[in-house]
Amino acid sequence: MKKLLLAAAAFSALTSAAVQAPAQNAASQAEKLRDAALKDDVAWDIMEGLTTEIGPRLAGTEAEARARDWAVRKLKSLGFANVHIETYDMPVWVRGEERAEIVSPFPQKLAVTALGNSGATPVEGIAAEVVGFDSLADLEAAADARVRGKIVFVTHSMTRTQDGSQYGYYGAVRRTGPSVASRKGAAAIVIRSIGTDKRRNPHTGVQMWAQGVTPIPAGALSIPDAEQLQRMLKRGKPVTMRLALTPRNIGMRQSGNVIAEVPGTDRNAGIVLIGGHLDSWDLGTGAFDNAAGVAITAAAAKRIMDAGRPRRTIRVVWFGAEEVGGNGSKAYRAAHGNESIVFVSESDFGADRVWRIEPGMAAANAPIVDRVAALLAPLGISRTTLPASAGADLGDWVRAGVAAIDLQQDGTRYFDLHHTPDDTLDKVDPEQLRQNVAAWTAMLSVVANAREPIERRPAAAAAQ
Amino acid sequence: MKKLLLAAAAFSALTSAAVQAPAQNAASQAEKLRDAALKDDVAWDIMEGLTTEIGPRLAGTEAEARARDWAVRKLKSLGFANVHIETYDMPVWVRGEERAEIVSPFPQKLAVTALGNSGATPVEGIAAEVVGFDSLADLEAAADARVRGKIVFVTHSMTRTQDGSQYGYYGAVRRTGPSVASRKGAAAIVIRSIGTDKRRNPHTGVQMWAQGVTPIPAGALSIPDAEQLQRMLKRGKPVTMRLALTPRNIGMRQSGNVIAEVPGTDRNAGIVLIGGHLDSWDLGTGAFDNAAGVAITAAAAKRIMDAGRPRRTIRVVWFGAEEVGGNGSKAYRAAHGNESIVFVSESDFGADRVWRIEPGMAAANAPIVDRVAALLAPLGISRTTLPASAGADLGDWVRAGVAAIDLQQDGTRYFDLHHTPDDTLDKVDPEQLRQNVAAWTAMLSVVANAREPIERRPAAAAAQ
Repeated sequence: MKKLLLAAAAFSALTSAAVQAPAQNAASQAEKLRDAALKDDVAWDIMEGLTTEIGPRLAGTEAEARARDWAVRKLKSLGFANVHIETYDMPVWVRGEERAEIVSPFPQKLAVTALGNSGATPVEGIAAEVVGFDSLADLEAAADARVRGKIVFVTHSMTRTQDGSQYGYYGAVRRTGPSVASRKGAAAIVIRSIGTDKRRNPHTGVQMWAQGVTPIPAGALSIPDAEQLQRMLKRGKPVTMRLALTPRNIGMRQSGNVIAEVPGTDRNAGIVLIGGHLDSWDLGTGAFDNAAGVAITAAAAKRIMDAGRPRRTIRVVWFGAEEVGGNGSKAYRAAHGNESIVFVSESDFGADRVWRIEPGMAAANAPIVDRVAALLAPLGISRTTLPASAGADLGDWVRAGVAAIDLQQDGTRYFDLHHTPDDTLDKVDPEQLRQNVAAWTAMLSVVANAREPIERRPAAAAAQ
Repeated sequence: MKKLLLAAAAFSALTSAAVQAPAQNAASQAEKLRDAALKDDVAWDIMEGLTTEIGPRLAGTEAEARARDWAVRKLKSLGFANVHIETYDMPVWVRGEERAEIVSPFPQKLAVTALGNSGATPVEGIAAEVVGFDSLADLEAAADARVRGKIVFVTHSMTRTQDGSQYGYYGAVRRTGPSVASRKGAAAIVIRSIGTDKRRNPHTGVQMWAQGVTPIPAGALSIPDAEQLQRMLKRGKPVTMRLALTPRNIGMRQSGNVIAEVPGTDRNAGIVLIGGHLDSWDLGTGAFDNAAGVAITAAAAKRIMDAGRPRRTIRVVWFGAEEVGGNGSKAYRAAHGNESIVFVSESDFGADRVWRIEPGMAAANAPIVDRVAALLAPLGISRTTLPASAGADLGDWVRAGVAAIDLQQDGTRYFDLHHTPDDTLDKVDPEQLRQNVAAWTAMLSVVANAREPIERRPAAAAAQ
């Protein structure tokens, strides 16, 4: 039956019946691949290996280089084609000593960590009065005289959400707070960690000094410590803190992206580009952020590969240096921006289950999204009207009009772990990880094998 | 009615009716006090103040001395009588630097903390091969040659329980593991933290070197790090660790107990002795362990005091140096062992709700336990046949035959926090704290006012 219909299709213009039957076969194939992926062990194996054998892998350090070598060995052993490293150079900042203590009126240590690109104190630290603000807006509104020479403390009210959407707004305390404080003449700044846990493990994260701003020491207190400091400040007596942060800029170092491919049968159908990032912050072993993403995307791509050559080449990129500014994704786009990349999708939001589809395809490709949505519904995944934006590594492609689908993960506990020492393998739920692989496998099966062309999106829609 | 009956009782041998009516009045009074305590803010106020204004308060340090001064001010301001400090001297051990890292084959840092009385490494640490054991029994059974010159790692299988009963068994890894390792010639020992969480905050805790054993560096890895080390060891290649722990014994220092009283009306009825411990480990602010206990017992005693003088004096002791060996309780018993203490009860298991009564009274006093049980039942507290044992500070009194009732707290999350940096105020649920105060208030109301004599228990029952 199948052969007859295929033969018929080859000899005639595609009739409706002929289109439908291969589509049904493709759907049935995708369903089988999806269900088999619910027993996946490849993603766990990648995560376990990378977090155990490498551990933390800060961009531009020898640990990230070890991670690249590990990645090449792993991806080759999994059978991928064209496995290689593409390097680039970048300035590297590394953590030093980190200590904070209240000197008076209530002497005790606080748990602190430096934010990316933080300036340094002398080894013995600096001591200054703390001036507290309830929000970034309050700091921005403050007279310079209130801030000058002091250690600025900024808290915020980020709460737990499933979509992680509060990170954008409250994350500004980390991203721009240090520059605002420096402009006003602060001696240093410590923020309430951008997170949702109540553990004494501060959240690091990158911040970039605004043009012309002098770097000052910039740290994050753990959330319990930030609350402790607030209780002290509320008592109305001057609070003096000693802060020691001794990070260093160690100059230009090599970083790189690791690339692997599942070769397609049709060179003219364009490339499907997927991935996550290989680098991690230095405090944890980067399990959620983002061993999960590289593991999920590679495991799904391998499942497509093992089922026979797809129509489109699937290219898996494990990006370097996402955490510290996206140097890897910039280098990749600079080198490959002119290639026929027709679809992108990124996994960079932990290891918990996918719960919704955010579509980002041209109107002509609505049937592709429909087919993906139908295949993912049995996994507890529904569709939203929020447009796909990919993540930090592939967002530029989406903004440029390349088609995309985001498989949004449950972020309820993501910001408990994000950029902390607690981002470790033990947090991963193998069943939720497998659901990710199943969702990705089904999506890749549809997208890589779609018979219709994958269109670019109009610039306006892409800019949504 | 009440006055009439009391007058009748004064003129006659106590008739059954006359006993019953005051008992009913007492029960009604205890019920009112219990229900009012469900709105208590005193316990929270004590906890908030002690953990914020003092923070960590390691026995024998200046922080514990500040805590004693704070306690005296607080207890006086609450209206207690006879508030004073009783000091004693003790040897003091203090934490130094703490670093652990895997040198090969998978270089990365591990989160470690020193156990109490740990020996020290040189500042730069020691590097040695790790030899792993799945239990204390496995270490004990190992040939000395397997252990000599190595860093011993011992894991265990402690799990979460409501009654916290696994601490006794699995805690032996901490309490005796270091001495066993030293006897076999180990260079150092690191254990899987004695805890139930999955956070990268190791659990400290005291261990005493067995007679004649040479102190060696002894630390605890956080549970995620212990699991990481297990994964490395499972790969079968030699694992080399560098361990730096630089604690010091700083000689004899002063510690002390803080005492406060609610004076009773009947000096011959004996004293009700209750309390918790004021000292804490140095990593957290000792909220669960044990600001909660001193807060709950004092808040309940204050409620009895404010309702009018009880029959028996209630003595509240906030013990020093519980964590490091019970120096405070030993000093207290040595000084006060001959006084007429007729009942003891201790709160030292966190701030979560009381869920059961463990009775420890003579058969003749069964009606007292019955009255307490009836009053506590509406708070979700039921009776068990497990005998009372008090805790580390008042257990000796129970073993000597003094009557006791334990109000056992829910320990489900206790060993997530115990002896870690995460034992901080934010973990406390004010509603559960209030339920503790209500239970304690009701119990104290019954016990301090009981008209019948409180008997000693036979030695055999007490030794149960």
